[in-house]
Amino acid sequence: MAIDLTHFLSNNAKNMRRSAIRDLLNVANKPEIISFAGGFPNALTFPVEDLKAIMTELMEEMPEKLLQYGPTTGSIALRKQIAKKYQEEGIDCTYENIIITTASQQALDLISRVFLNPGDTVLCGLPSYLGALQAFYSYQAQPIGIKNDEEAEAVVSALCAIGKKPKFIYAIPDFQNPTGVTMTAERRKEILAVAEKYDILVLEDSPYKEIRFEGEAQPTMYSLCPERVMLAGTFSKTFCPGFRIGWVLASKEIIEKLEVAKQSADLCTPVFNQEVAARYMEKGYYETNLQKTINLYRDKRDLMDKCLTEMMPEGVRWTRPDGGLFLLVTLPEYMDARELFNVAIQENVAFVIGEVFYCDGKGQNTLRLNFSYASDENIKEGVRRLANAIKKLMK
Amino acid sequence: MAIDLTHFLSNNAKNMRRSAIRDLLNVANKPEIISFAGGFPNALTFPVEDLKAIMTELMEEMPEKLLQYGPTTGSIALRKQIAKKYQEEGIDCTYENIIITTASQQALDLISRVFLNPGDTVLCGLPSYLGALQAFYSYQAQPIGIKNDEEAEAVVSALCAIGKKPKFIYAIPDFQNPTGVTMTAERRKEILAVAEKYDILVLEDSPYKEIRFEGEAQPTMYSLCPERVMLAGTFSKTFCPGFRIGWVLASKEIIEKLEVAKQSADLCTPVFNQEVAARYMEKGYYETNLQKTINLYRDKRDLMDKCLTEMMPEGVRWTRPDGGLFLLVTLPEYMDARELFNVAIQENVAFVIGEVFYCDGKGQNTLRLNFSYASDENIKEGVRRLANAIKKLMK
Repeated sequence: MAIDLTHFLSNNAKNMRRSAIRDLLNVANKPEIISFAGGFPNALTFPVEDLKAIMTELMEEMPEKLLQYGPTTGSIALRKQIAKKYQEEGIDCTYENIIITTASQQALDLISRVFLNPGDTVLCGLPSYLGALQAFYSYQAQPIGIKNDEEAEAVVSALCAIGKKPKFIYAIPDFQNPTGVTMTAERRKEILAVAEKYDILVLEDSPYKEIRFEGEAQPTMYSLCPERVMLAGTFSKTFCPGFRIGWVLASKEIIEKLEVAKQSADLCTPVFNQEVAARYMEKGYYETNLQKTINLYRDKRDLMDKCLTEMMPEGVRWTRPDGGLFLLVTLPEYMDARELFNVAIQENVAFVIGEVFYCDGKGQNTLRLNFSYASDENIKEGVRRLANAIKKLMK
Repeated sequence: MAIDLTHFLSNNAKNMRRSAIRDLLNVANKPEIISFAGGFPNALTFPVEDLKAIMTELMEEMPEKLLQYGPTTGSIALRKQIAKKYQEEGIDCTYENIIITTASQQALDLISRVFLNPGDTVLCGLPSYLGALQAFYSYQAQPIGIKNDEEAEAVVSALCAIGKKPKFIYAIPDFQNPTGVTMTAERRKEILAVAEKYDILVLEDSPYKEIRFEGEAQPTMYSLCPERVMLAGTFSKTFCPGFRIGWVLASKEIIEKLEVAKQSADLCTPVFNQEVAARYMEKGYYETNLQKTINLYRDKRDLMDKCLTEMMPEGVRWTRPDGGLFLLVTLPEYMDARELFNVAIQENVAFVIGEVFYCDGKGQNTLRLNFSYASDENIKEGVRRLANAIKKLMK
């Protein structure tokens, strides 16, 4: 005798949206399907042997620490290693500016929890990372999208005029998800000037920054305005997602608020995983493996771009990112990626419909392709299948 | 130039309460202090060698799976092992009734998120587990305490009369935190009858149930009313807390709601940790180690009880739990455990002041002692120091 849950649910729960990506992944989870859908790193980049050695080493050295509860802010060894990475980029910070999170999705969640009331607005890109939109929705906040960074000031000004000033600006400045596009340093400064002028915080989501194939690294928004920016980082794309380690770099005042929020969210991130990651960085393996990852993903981006060029029919465009894991394909305006998805699944190829990244419900003619996960053979064959599916639907 | 955060903070954040336990642990974190404060399991119960072997085995067998993203609901192997445990108790469930969480604190958080609106009430014990109270506060809900289970119906009826019917009843029926007290089967049924009569859900927090020293196991509230009860379980007390693995056992409808909430909370619990735990259970190590844990903690409960009997001055009372990790000490009414804490710290012994477990702000003359963590020598010496501190403050 099931109970009708409807009258028990919180307004948060009523406002939550299932992840279309997670649902798509279930569909795409058949062996015959080549999937460009997930944001999965390639298993070739997983440092299996190094990790095995470190686990054994640490389990001999400090088993009691690894298996016991740890501090809510995270392992000091790991926080120091992460702070060191930023210090080497010239950022003035200490481990006290870092809180470890259960991967960066938790960072997005805790920041939302600490800052967002129902009805609050958040400025974000059109399109923008679905997981962040989900976090905002789950606190009943409203993401307001801008098509390009130039619109930021006009939109903020309009929102202020109606008493809906955004609590923060959500940006993925490097190799944005889903477009793969990177903001110039000038644009970052302009966005920060808007934040400054209107007294708004900035959430800089930075999962891909280190995976740069070419061109010069741009400064983090945090480095340009450390008192106003919260930077969310993660090892999910550069080390291994199955360990679930992320962090926030922010002012000590903000870290302290996030700490209290994390106490009731999950008390602490697994100590074992944190200490393994810390030791991995201490040994200098992180940089070596990152370089290998960059080289692998550059080749895959090149291959996917080449296949798209060779196989896509006239009228289909796509981005060519300088880094990261994704590119965005734009179909002719009259086409619908949702319709394409059904045809593509019959052709045994999967992607994420772009629409889910658009908080204004647009983007129907776009789709996101991941190029990090598939083997080279599957990239070739998958793009061929996708091109076939598109041709079938084209007028 | 720091920013004044006050006007940015959400109402949730303004309502959050720092964990007094976590703050006390910082004070108690000096080597000279004997701490009865935390809820730490004893490191002697950590199956270090077995875990080392399993980690190596799994890293050879399925490294790609261990290090990659996993499903939000958790590892199917682990969900099946946990379901099997409940099936063996005669509970009718499958792995689809289980969602893995980042330890049971996340279970409390997700359940709060899915069901609690600001201003909602939750019925709970006086005293009751602080981490649960924190989760309720962080969604601006209001815990309403009852001194004993007999009061449940009267209080629910009164709350209903003023339009404040509780969303759920929060109960820790086995070896309650902080009192160590266990509810009889009859009492469980009475509470469930109240839930049934007034159409209220029940959150059964069950971290200690398996750690029973003597007497007969009582049925879980879930087994008595599976459609209305959400059972939160954890490996933190019976395996190792540093792995951060918990779960909820509930109806599929509720599991589905928790899944969507977890997507935006942290996407998934570490896959590595889940697969290690699953293999550990598959090998049958869990039961063996649990028995060892029970024997160890029974001895420690006996020792602490003996020391308290020998050393405590007249007028001090304490519970003698049949299981779990904690007992509650009650001082004479005129005494204040907060004052005692300061004296005790000077004597180099720490505990948790009972007041933090009382949502009505009472309990000033109570303190929680943990008996699982300290060595036998430290239990003796710590109780001696505590008795001294109490005598100093006694009239």
